[in-house]
Amino acid sequence: MSKPGRHFLHIPGPTNVPDRVLRAMDRALIDHRGPEFAQLTLRLLPRLQKLFKCSGPVVIYPASGTGAWEAALVNTLSPGDKVLMADIGHFASLWKDMADRLGLEAEFLPSDWRRAADPEAIRDRLAADTGHEIKAVCVVHNETSTGCAARLPEIRRAIDDVGHPALFMVDTISSLGSMDYRHDEWKVDVSVGGSQKGMMLPPGMSFNAISQKALDASKTARLPKCYWEWNDMLSANQNGFFPYTPATNLFYALDEALTIIEEQGLDNIIARHERHAEATRRAVHAWGLELVCADPREYSSSLTSIFVPEGYSANALRAQILENFDLSLGTGLARLADRVFRIGHLGDLNDLTLIGAISGVEMGLKIAGIPHNAGGTQAAMDFLAGAEQAEETAPQQAAMA
Amino acid sequence: MSKPGRHFLHIPGPTNVPDRVLRAMDRALIDHRGPEFAQLTLRLLPRLQKLFKCSGPVVIYPASGTGAWEAALVNTLSPGDKVLMADIGHFASLWKDMADRLGLEAEFLPSDWRRAADPEAIRDRLAADTGHEIKAVCVVHNETSTGCAARLPEIRRAIDDVGHPALFMVDTISSLGSMDYRHDEWKVDVSVGGSQKGMMLPPGMSFNAISQKALDASKTARLPKCYWEWNDMLSANQNGFFPYTPATNLFYALDEALTIIEEQGLDNIIARHERHAEATRRAVHAWGLELVCADPREYSSSLTSIFVPEGYSANALRAQILENFDLSLGTGLARLADRVFRIGHLGDLNDLTLIGAISGVEMGLKIAGIPHNAGGTQAAMDFLAGAEQAEETAPQQAAMA
Amino acid sequence: MSKPGRHFLHIPGPTNVPDRVLRAMDRALIDHRGPEFAQLTLRLLPRLQKLFKCSGPVVIYPASGTGAWEAALVNTLSPGDKVLMADIGHFASLWKDMADRLGLEAEFLPSDWRRAADPEAIRDRLAADTGHEIKAVCVVHNETSTGCAARLPEIRRAIDDVGHPALFMVDTISSLGSMDYRHDEWKVDVSVGGSQKGMMLPPGMSFNAISQKALDASKTARLPKCYWEWNDMLSANQNGFFPYTPATNLFYALDEALTIIEEQGLDNIIARHERHAEATRRAVHAWGLELVCADPREYSSSLTSIFVPEGYSANALRAQILENFDLSLGTGLARLADRVFRIGHLGDLNDLTLIGAISGVEMGLKIAGIPHNAGGTQAAMDFLAGAEQAEETAPQQAAMA
Amino acid sequence: MSKPGRHFLHIPGPTNVPDRVLRAMDRALIDHRGPEFAQLTLRLLPRLQKLFKCSGPVVIYPASGTGAWEAALVNTLSPGDKVLMADIGHFASLWKDMADRLGLEAEFLPSDWRRAADPEAIRDRLAADTGHEIKAVCVVHNETSTGCAARLPEIRRAIDDVGHPALFMVDTISSLGSMDYRHDEWKVDVSVGGSQKGMMLPPGMSFNAISQKALDASKTARLPKCYWEWNDMLSANQNGFFPYTPATNLFYALDEALTIIEEQGLDNIIARHERHAEATRRAVHAWGLELVCADPREYSSSLTSIFVPEGYSANALRAQILENFDLSLGTGLARLADRVFRIGHLGDLNDLTLIGAISGVEMGLKIAGIPHNAGGTQAAMDFLAGAEQAEETAPQQAAMA
Repeated sequence: MSKPGRHFLHIPGPTNVPDRVLRAMDRALIDHRGPEFAQLTLRLLPRLQKLFKCSGPVVIYPASGTGAWEAALVNTLSPGDKVLMADIGHFASLWKDMADRLGLEAEFLPSDWRRAADPEAIRDRLAADTGHEIKAVCVVHNETSTGCAARLPEIRRAIDDVGHPALFMVDTISSLGSMDYRHDEWKVDVSVGGSQKGMMLPPGMSFNAISQKALDASKTARLPKCYWEWNDMLSANQNGFFPYTPATNLFYALDEALTIIEEQGLDNIIARHERHAEATRRAVHAWGLELVCADPREYSSSLTSIFVPEGYSANALRAQILENFDLSLGTGLARLADRVFRIGHLGDLNDLTLIGAISGVEMGLKIAGIPHNAGGTQAAMDFLAGAEQAEETAPQQAAMA
Repeated sequence: MSKPGRHFLHIPGPTNVPDRVLRAMDRALIDHRGPEFAQLTLRLLPRLQKLFKCSGPVVIYPASGTGAWEAALVNTLSPGDKVLMADIGHFASLWKDMADRLGLEAEFLPSDWRRAADPEAIRDRLAADTGHEIKAVCVVHNETSTGCAARLPEIRRAIDDVGHPALFMVDTISSLGSMDYRHDEWKVDVSVGGSQKGMMLPPGMSFNAISQKALDASKTARLPKCYWEWNDMLSANQNGFFPYTPATNLFYALDEALTIIEEQGLDNIIARHERHAEATRRAVHAWGLELVCADPREYSSSLTSIFVPEGYSANALRAQILENFDLSLGTGLARLADRVFRIGHLGDLNDLTLIGAISGVEMGLKIAGIPHNAGGTQAAMDFLAGAEQAEETAPQQAAMA
Repeated sequence: MSKPGRHFLHIPGPTNVPDRVLRAMDRALIDHRGPEFAQLTLRLLPRLQKLFKCSGPVVIYPASGTGAWEAALVNTLSPGDKVLMADIGHFASLWKDMADRLGLEAEFLPSDWRRAADPEAIRDRLAADTGHEIKAVCVVHNETSTGCAARLPEIRRAIDDVGHPALFMVDTISSLGSMDYRHDEWKVDVSVGGSQKGMMLPPGMSFNAISQKALDASKTARLPKCYWEWNDMLSANQNGFFPYTPATNLFYALDEALTIIEEQGLDNIIARHERHAEATRRAVHAWGLELVCADPREYSSSLTSIFVPEGYSANALRAQILENFDLSLGTGLARLADRVFRIGHLGDLNDLTLIGAISGVEMGLKIAGIPHNAGGTQAAMDFLAGAEQAEETAPQQAAMA
Repeated sequence: MSKPGRHFLHIPGPTNVPDRVLRAMDRALIDHRGPEFAQLTLRLLPRLQKLFKCSGPVVIYPASGTGAWEAALVNTLSPGDKVLMADIGHFASLWKDMADRLGLEAEFLPSDWRRAADPEAIRDRLAADTGHEIKAVCVVHNETSTGCAARLPEIRRAIDDVGHPALFMVDTISSLGSMDYRHDEWKVDVSVGGSQKGMMLPPGMSFNAISQKALDASKTARLPKCYWEWNDMLSANQNGFFPYTPATNLFYALDEALTIIEEQGLDNIIARHERHAEATRRAVHAWGLELVCADPREYSSSLTSIFVPEGYSANALRAQILENFDLSLGTGLARLADRVFRIGHLGDLNDLTLIGAISGVEMGLKIAGIPHNAGGTQAAMDFLAGAEQAEETAPQQAAMA
């Protein structure tokens, strides 16, 4: 209960929440039907649009990201509708499972869990769907179980190239606010966001950013819904209100988190995440360990998934690191269980905290007796201390933009 | 933005959250898949059972109470199932509307909005349902729009008397932690709770307390669901985890709120609410205004709804009171709009704050030029200063118990 | 430990601290020798000058108001120096006692404890001091034990009328930020302030506002000093620093408290205190109790001291009120012990909280069996609800200005 | 204003304050003359005694440590009294300067600023003082400007060996709660403590732990005093009260900080500080830089002072580190200005934060172009990862005990 110093939280979300945000949330409650709250809502909505880079509405749910997944599906689709997904990780699998449970027919493009959704495979499948039976393509932007980030502009191009009318739904839960994301430019129809990652908020709030095409689809969608119903939200939101009690104290937190993002500049934040991701990968390379993500074009900027050598337990390593250094790392999920550990480097984070975390992993590898080369921390430091170069060699996103 | 002193929050929820609870929530995040969080969950669940007075499981959702309504329905029922509800207020209407939207067939017992669900009417309707087509009786315990509280033991008896097998679902959102509530004793199958009323928490967390009979029903229920799925919850909860990210910071808040409830004693808290409700009603009587609740057996202990005289605007009164005295009162909802204002007197509240609120109403009536007699505040003070007598004349719950 | 609702803190300081101020103080520490802290200091000092209405320096001590009393004396005076004070209450007595202990020769103008320092008596004594042996006139602006406020402009005039060169030192601890105070206009040489009253801060910070004449006097003052030394402070302050570690977290609090004062407007705050004081006095009159302050020109706006009838115990009353209504009132001090209770109505306070406190006193009088008339709360409400009239009949300060 | 992540505060105080402590301080104010506050005081005092390892009284001042220095002197000494001090650093100089200003005659044993007070020199000087003109020996335990810690048991022995009756006063401001300290065992007469170092509190509170011999001395001490007067404190403290308003919110903080110390165990905390100090020194050695402290027996466990190579600016280095890595380091003071930087490693700190700070220094040395060898961070990691060995090779304190 009482360990010295601050916990190092390096799971890929929930992330470190700035003290300013925690303090903003720590506030007496007000009337969610009164004028002060309405003004707060009306101040927040356009700023959320800037974060999603969208011009259409953003809906705020008092729910986890999983709820916003459900909202995306039930507002736009009808029982038996076909949706196309890609089997690229644990969260993609969960979303696919949800689609099935809700009465959709989800097709799962085969893949391994070492790369993101493949634009070519999507293009091919859509090209074959001449009857346009597929109603939606659902892609996880940043698969949090593997650290692979989809090349969304290429997927968008794939859909357009074959002229397929499917809705394009993207889970940006673990990328929004950390990695480049452009709802309008990439013609995403529903973006699914969550509070507890790059947005630097506690969990309990999630989002749908909605295109006109998705709104149109919602007119005829027949999956049953009530809590997730966009219409009720959009109509009440006009005056700053909600169809049911929103998570009011998270609104204060959101206000403050958006202010911080605005102060720092979203582009700077994205660049920082890229820089931290590169520093982390350099440490991994120096240790001689293997990244889960097999394609450098798809390296995630918000987390890094790492294999432990054959015959060693990632969970035992994580437990020792937690015990010895008060550092939480992400666990390997589903088929990656015990083979993988994940370093989250997203949210409210700076260089020295990242070095602290990397050094904790390196010391943990030593204590756990896992074969590795020393020098990972040093490699990360060398990269970070040479900041200018970093900006030049920088990553994938520049190419994507 | 900067009014002096503390806001008087007297809507019937969200309620005043104790500083200790706000401070507990204001805490750095931890790994929701780590051992510390699991221990927290396992510490909370049995204490929630004590609050609901139930021996079966309690499920915690990162959602508003509306979500827990939906969870109750989708886990236990199938498309086209009949449910029996009573048209006794705005929230009852919303729940009925939800049932319809989800594909159920909700029957709405007619009533006015000045009393709670009628045990006799329920008995009669169930007696007539010899084919047992009605799968559930859904009752709002404490209708927050009218201040009428259902006589649940009598409703239970009504169901039993005719030997009807329908599930008994109760919305205890605005009564739990403020008024006497007994899940097991009253053989409730699904109790629907929310954080932001008597539990003294911010909104964003809601609950289902579940009987064995409801669990059995969930085995064959065919309404589609994923976010609300009990099974996933119950299975993950066994080890203190959740199928998706829970609202972690509200867990700290819940821990502290339950500690406060335990320190004060639930029975004492219920008695305090009864005392404050009686003081409020005495003020209303002294003013010569009329209560919405027409049946003294059904007076709510957590809020009081009051008619303004014909020809006056309740909303104008509320606005003037907010402007002049920084006091938020509940608005009249739906058909009661502008005819009714509501005084919330639940949650973390003491005598002097209640007197402050009542005096704010009285001064507001004067400023707004609404016909009334002076002396309501004095009447409330006279009652509260004579505490001992209060305990003798006390309310409905004693009889109910 | 766990009483419901918020404590009613109506001692005449420490006062209610706004949540925004508490939250501002609740912040990670920074380097008090670094640039961020220096900038904070330099932002605060000119705003403190506005509060004192002074153009000379304001010195901030990490100390209680008692420390700032000591600082005023030791920086300006030498062993054996004569100072003139008035025996008008407990705090005046403590300051006099301090002067004696520090090696000064304090002369105490006789008075009763039902009025403030008498301009006429001061004039007469100074007129008689033809040799100018009296080096300083030390006056408590707002005597917190009696609720009597000195007519400072008249005292200033008394000093000027006889052309006496004595320094004019004023304790404004319980008036600053609550009552009209003008360091420069009233030619005060040292104003002694404290954080925990009208400034709405926790205790632990105190102030000297210093005239040029006082600075000149400090050049030759020979009382030994180090912690309180102005020179060290003034020289370090130029760059935003301090000769020893300041109470850094109170600086954040001060920043926020000054922001609140600026948002609300100091004049509005003073008017609010006058209005609350008048409401309180009307309650006292209605109860038929007697004010300690015998001269209406000297009514304090920040607290009201009230005699209990002969033969009753003020402390027993206070204890019963604390026990029954969680309301803290000020105790009678020194010769007023057990004969007097004090209602603090300063700091972050609004109408309904004041009514709550007054009702707590009225209910307490009833429970304690102390002879009184009912109707005090009603009288206060009648006054407050008739806000406009209030502004017209308003108080002493207008005349003083 | 809005840098990402948490600031790394590695000045030698104020230190990192645990969130629990900040949150405890963030609490509504109460009556400092009421029963709840008295109980709090009475709960704190005996726990402070355990921290000082003393059986006599501990006095709590609303003041910085500088105030508690003054309190130690003015309560025990009279004008013209001789006190013996050692010229071993900036803070020793300040205390000496204070003694002179207060009218004492302070003798300053010559030394350089690379070692602590020398037991032999003290012995020799006291032996020569056959007339017992020296009334007090005043020693800084842990000189915060140099990182040298006095061998107090040897100094105690030196005083005893020559049978000198001088009072033994020790400044333990930057050692208490971080390094071994034993008021009673070492027969210290006045221990001077401060809140903002190892006690993990914000500044604004300081302490005197007082022996019977010091109390006896206070009976005849003639330096003028009022704010610092022990008698008033000790008499009011008996019932849990104070002669003037204490810094009430820091009392909550102190309560929580002592709880944390009790949970972790003072011995474990001391061992942790020794371990962190050793890790830091290993980094410094690896860099090839020179420690200020020239005597390994006197290495401080709470901070490390390091020379930059001749011809380089320590302040420029600190500025670049602050700018690039949001890491605050201690500045060189007085004659060490710009030649020295100091790493604070005391208070609420863990291994990974320390590594983060050390890496920040190493990256800063690189960016600033200061000649050094890489590998300091690695050396610290190697030491910390080999925790067991660490405990064996451990430091000075074991020998001292």
